[in-house]
Amino acid sequence: MTRRIHVIGIGAGDPDYVTAQAVAALNDTRVFFVMDKGEAKDELVALRRLICERFIREPGYRFVELPDPPRNRVAPDTPAYRQAVADWHARRARLWADAIASELGPGDVGAFLAWGDPSLYDSTLRILETVSAHVDIDYDVIPGITAIQALTARHRIPLNEVGEPVLITTGRQLRTHGLTGDAVVMLDGECSFRVCPPDTRIWWGAYLGTPDEILVAGTVGEVGDKITELRAAARERHGWIMDTYLLRPASR
Amino acid sequence: MTRRIHVIGIGAGDPDYVTAQAVAALNDTRVFFVMDKGEAKDELVALRRLICERFIREPGYRFVELPDPPRNRVAPDTPAYRQAVADWHARRARLWADAIASELGPGDVGAFLAWGDPSLYDSTLRILETVSAHVDIDYDVIPGITAIQALTARHRIPLNEVGEPVLITTGRQLRTHGLTGDAVVMLDGECSFRVCPPDTRIWWGAYLGTPDEILVAGTVGEVGDKITELRAAARERHGWIMDTYLLRPASR
Repeated sequence: MTRRIHVIGIGAGDPDYVTAQAVAALNDTRVFFVMDKGEAKDELVALRRLICERFIREPGYRFVELPDPPRNRVAPDTPAYRQAVADWHARRARLWADAIASELGPGDVGAFLAWGDPSLYDSTLRILETVSAHVDIDYDVIPGITAIQALTARHRIPLNEVGEPVLITTGRQLRTHGLTGDAVVMLDGECSFRVCPPDTRIWWGAYLGTPDEILVAGTVGEVGDKITELRAAARERHGWIMDTYLLRPASR
Repeated sequence: MTRRIHVIGIGAGDPDYVTAQAVAALNDTRVFFVMDKGEAKDELVALRRLICERFIREPGYRFVELPDPPRNRVAPDTPAYRQAVADWHARRARLWADAIASELGPGDVGAFLAWGDPSLYDSTLRILETVSAHVDIDYDVIPGITAIQALTARHRIPLNEVGEPVLITTGRQLRTHGLTGDAVVMLDGECSFRVCPPDTRIWWGAYLGTPDEILVAGTVGEVGDKITELRAAARERHGWIMDTYLLRPASR
């Protein structure tokens, strides 16, 4: 009687992004394991509870909070960084394995909810792989709408030019390597688009899919300062921000 | 009384990938405009009708087939290629504008259904932008689960390494430029992963999210021939195939 776990992508912000497959998995779940941290906590907890209340028909489920182990902060792009991330994942995996073993009986079903899609800049799958070495679990993955898709849908634009590639990357990578072609940038706390030439086109979005959504499009030269100001003001107002953007070099 | 159009991403194969937002848009639609072409036609038409039958509550909708204008086939990566694509889009846009004007009354709602997500290697949004120059329409975009998310979910793997970028690209681009880092390959009819070193890791999937799904993972050296054979046999059996894969170089 293996314990079963769903890793459920619940989409990027809008409860309407939840898929039929995710609804079935939510209704199949008795225990939701949650890790809350950071400034976005209250609003994101509320949004997650809203999704459960809206889509789960029988209220027999419960939430279990997982403690977050301390993380050694080291500079990225150093040998110590990968090791620090690996150590932290290992500590998390041990805590998760203990929680799963104590909170779920054999044959019970638990779940982890991931914003957007569990495959994209999310550590749940990496940690669960380690968890499965400690406790007998069988897990599946339910895909969800990512912030990238929310961004292109709300701007009504294609992600790629005809037959051309597009890079999914981070703010740090953009600052280190510059813009080498079309790119979507995530995890950027520093408006890294400012390293791009002013004629670079940008489609930016924050709080995508929520009532607080902000969209700006133009060239970095035209709208870069505006985005920087809007972002700082919104972050101040909400206490947190999630944003992403697509960049296209002016010409090939 | 502007005509309204939804561009609805219906996900990559599994009807359970349909989102709550897509269900609302399907139910809002009176006329579905469809372009059917190629060998996959019968199965894909059936799958689309299944999605409509399953999720639409009032059967007051109808399908309108759009004729596909002839396309001048020219070699990719030539100046003539972009022009040929642009010409073909322009002819399509004119046909679509005529169909929308004649099939939808003012204030009516039509829709285009896109496999996966409308932003990814799909021409609907580009063509609609041109259509809007010919006929007064207001359109919105509903994101859907892409084959990339179906692939990573079914293999239960992250798309990216921790903090690292990943390229979304095509088989042709891979053959031309080689593998420069982690990459997801789409639109590849030629098993282009064979250009990669044998120790490159590959996660491959075909007919993702359907009962005919095939998954293979390993290194190109270990499973490359197997994928090539499986793909050819499946394509022969079904008359068509849709597949995608993630590649990771052996080490950095």
